[in-house]
Amino acid sequence: MRNAFHDELDAIGASLLQMAGLVKLAMSDATLAILTADLTVAEKVIAADTVIDDIQHDLDARTINLMARQQPVASDLRTLVTSLRMSADLERMGDLADHVAKQARMRYPNSAVPAELIPTITAMGSVADKLIDKLSSVMEHRDTVRALEIENDDDEMDKLHRDLISVLLSKEWNYGVETAIDMTLLGRFYERFADHAVSIARRVYFSVTGEYSTN
Amino acid sequence: MRNAFHDELDAIGASLLQMAGLVKLAMSDATLAILTADLTVAEKVIAADTVIDDIQHDLDARTINLMARQQPVASDLRTLVTSLRMSADLERMGDLADHVAKQARMRYPNSAVPAELIPTITAMGSVADKLIDKLSSVMEHRDTVRALEIENDDDEMDKLHRDLISVLLSKEWNYGVETAIDMTLLGRFYERFADHAVSIARRVYFSVTGEYSTN
Repeated sequence: MRNAFHDELDAIGASLLQMAGLVKLAMSDATLAILTADLTVAEKVIAADTVIDDIQHDLDARTINLMARQQPVASDLRTLVTSLRMSADLERMGDLADHVAKQARMRYPNSAVPAELIPTITAMGSVADKLIDKLSSVMEHRDTVRALEIENDDDEMDKLHRDLISVLLSKEWNYGVETAIDMTLLGRFYERFADHAVSIARRVYFSVTGEYSTN
Repeated sequence: MRNAFHDELDAIGASLLQMAGLVKLAMSDATLAILTADLTVAEKVIAADTVIDDIQHDLDARTINLMARQQPVASDLRTLVTSLRMSADLERMGDLADHVAKQARMRYPNSAVPAELIPTITAMGSVADKLIDKLSSVMEHRDTVRALEIENDDDEMDKLHRDLISVLLSKEWNYGVETAIDMTLLGRFYERFADHAVSIARRVYFSVTGEYSTN
């Protein structure tokens, strides 16, 4: 039976999806900003991060309020606790997009990414975009098949991260230590972004099946 | 009036303190392992991380179970939600100690840290130790004065992190890109460790005062 409680639960789900949409936009803009040294786009990402933070604060307050008023039973309570955790992961993914954009801004008007690494960072951006797209679908449709796929996409991100490090360590690397430091951190931001996507996908998988994913 | 509910709440607080104690030991051992290239200590930290993870899983299950059974009112509910968040931060701090130990293991039998950076990493380890010590006291005694001090200690960590980067960028840096990559990540692990300590301190501050700390 539908009731006001479930309407509020749906509204919380919708806010999580809204957060995921903003995180997707933030990371794809941040990737664009760092690949093209576009200061305007970088500033847009940095400004938008406070919007994501505000949605999280509001969402968490509503979630806790709903717990207090409705005293939900086991499965609904678990959904609400999971919402709190998913909003924390999404907020952190927004921070990581913000870090990418700040690196673009720090090196502007120069390009932060040397030519040799443009293909790798482009690919990391694509995987990040694919991950968050799939994640939105997993969250919206409680899609366990796609939830499992996200772990494979994360393997792809880890491989790209290893590729990036091997470029930094190759004899052909002529950009010195400063750019190597930047690229190490940049790679880490994408890698952690993917880790948080996996974390959310696992929570959805667990909340649907009652089991932990094993791959 | 004391009752079974408050006994369970106390037990949850005790488990959080136990986690903090294990995280303190993990990070101080990890620092020792990386400064002295001690493989045995590194392996100990890596093995102990699953203990921290297990305590978190158990603690979170007890916390959610308590929410479901006791249907706590506003302030008690807020305490339980805060516990879930604090356990997530502590678990992540354990991961970061594990990452430090894994870097020591990866470079063994060589020392991961070049001589020029021994003082900086030693200092980062000391600040991490001071932070987690203070944090335990903040958690145990709901000490808002020390909660605010933790933000200053975090500034100290950020300064050490900048010092570390400036050594990597100095003309005297003779260790090449690979060691610079390692040291960049190592610095980031300590910096994030401190960030999570600040996050927990802010939660305690908010839960005691009802206000966000402003410094």
